[in-house]
Amino acid sequence: MGSAGRIERNIKSRLMDKLFVIKIGGNVLDDDAAQLPFLKDFAAIDAKKILVHGGGKIASSIGKKLGIEPRYVNGRRITDEATIDLVTMVYGGLLNKKIVAKLQSLNCNSIGLTGADANIIPATLRPVGEIDYGFVGDLNAKELGIGNLELLLSNSLVPVFAPLTHDGKGQLLNTNADTIASALAIALSKAYDVRLVYCFEKKGVLENIDDENSVISLLSKEKYNALLQDKKLADGILPKIDNAFAAIDSGVKEVLIGDAGDLLLNCTGNVKGTLFKQ
Amino acid sequence: MGSAGRIERNIKSRLMDKLFVIKIGGNVLDDDAAQLPFLKDFAAIDAKKILVHGGGKIASSIGKKLGIEPRYVNGRRITDEATIDLVTMVYGGLLNKKIVAKLQSLNCNSIGLTGADANIIPATLRPVGEIDYGFVGDLNAKELGIGNLELLLSNSLVPVFAPLTHDGKGQLLNTNADTIASALAIALSKAYDVRLVYCFEKKGVLENIDDENSVISLLSKEKYNALLQDKKLADGILPKIDNAFAAIDSGVKEVLIGDAGDLLLNCTGNVKGTLFKQ
Repeated sequence: MGSAGRIERNIKSRLMDKLFVIKIGGNVLDDDAAQLPFLKDFAAIDAKKILVHGGGKIASSIGKKLGIEPRYVNGRRITDEATIDLVTMVYGGLLNKKIVAKLQSLNCNSIGLTGADANIIPATLRPVGEIDYGFVGDLNAKELGIGNLELLLSNSLVPVFAPLTHDGKGQLLNTNADTIASALAIALSKAYDVRLVYCFEKKGVLENIDDENSVISLLSKEKYNALLQDKKLADGILPKIDNAFAAIDSGVKEVLIGDAGDLLLNCTGNVKGTLFKQ
Repeated sequence: MGSAGRIERNIKSRLMDKLFVIKIGGNVLDDDAAQLPFLKDFAAIDAKKILVHGGGKIASSIGKKLGIEPRYVNGRRITDEATIDLVTMVYGGLLNKKIVAKLQSLNCNSIGLTGADANIIPATLRPVGEIDYGFVGDLNAKELGIGNLELLLSNSLVPVFAPLTHDGKGQLLNTNADTIASALAIALSKAYDVRLVYCFEKKGVLENIDDENSVISLLSKEKYNALLQDKKLADGILPKIDNAFAAIDSGVKEVLIGDAGDLLLNCTGNVKGTLFKQ
């Protein structure tokens, strides 16, 4: 982008409200000792914000009691009919509504949603290829029902999304929480100055996988390519980094990958995790 | 009310939008053959509307599989910790979100909520008296967060409520769906011309309990008192009738008790059930 474009973008961004889209994994929700401090930090963020939560082990343990065995094909989890009902209960009901009730007690006026609610996240049943994933939804940031989401945000409500979408034909679908967070961030970047924050169990992207203190504060594509060539990065982090650059390339101003415990710091200018910028 | 008051009310009511608050019991939701026609009729109502749904037997059957035994004291169901989690999953997740997805497929832009969402229905834990009911919430129509509900309604969204509230301290509570419907109708009657519709398994209030065709079309307090004196009414209907008159006395313009299958007719002037009017 040339300097004229950069100036135009900077002016536009100064006129736009800051919005944090924060993704939290199921492991933090499963851990009572970690969950409440995280929700306290989330409630304390003094800006517009959206929480997208993952699943967690509780769905598996409830599924086991109900006799719903996880099914895998080539190592990929299949969402059959019993499983979509299970995750609708656990993600859309138990986890989502308990988070909402806790946030309400922390003076955060949250509203718990799936992608079916207010038709905010329509999705397409994943086509059957080599694997039939079952009731899994793929989504397109351009097709989201952002008007209703902006309505909630502009009225000081805090949306909390469970990782569920729908096909518009009456069927709920299972969709990855990282993907939902990224699509929401992209779709909202036209109206807001968005930072997408992925909370995970490390302090950020590590330059040296054996050194927890080697967090890269700002990761450029040039630096990423150099690290890739040197094979310095952990394999598990690569999809997250690719997601981050994809979001940046699609209009999200900043993406941050960091520790759930550093959330508040990572919603300021003094980041502790790894930042990606346009 | 004198004629001046009546004229004033009529003028006000002509300026207000019509709003239907419709309560549907769990038995209709449990019955696949009845559920979809009901949702089709609900989607077809050409006015602002809210759906409040009850629980149904599915919570008991899932509870049984999870080893959660229903507990009763003096014949009253107790909501212990395992049970509030169960109903949060089943009412707030499974039933609520499946209804929302189905309504979306019927071009009804619904949004599934509990009372914790957007803090619309705060409640108070029922005090422990002779019985400790556990996590049961009592509510007050004057304390509802109606502003956010009006925001949704005025933006063409259709709220669908599960029978859950919250105590503002982080705890979800079990609350009777009839009570929620009545409180919402009362609270919204200041801004809308409300008809509260209770759908149940009879055609309406029967003048002769042995004759399904003896539906009373319009029930006045005078007529009710006469029927009470003659002991003509079924015991089960008395609380519903008392609720209906209480709603009328608190500002709701009309209450209707009728069959779920007659919903569309009961949202017009040609009612098939029993109407109560101010």
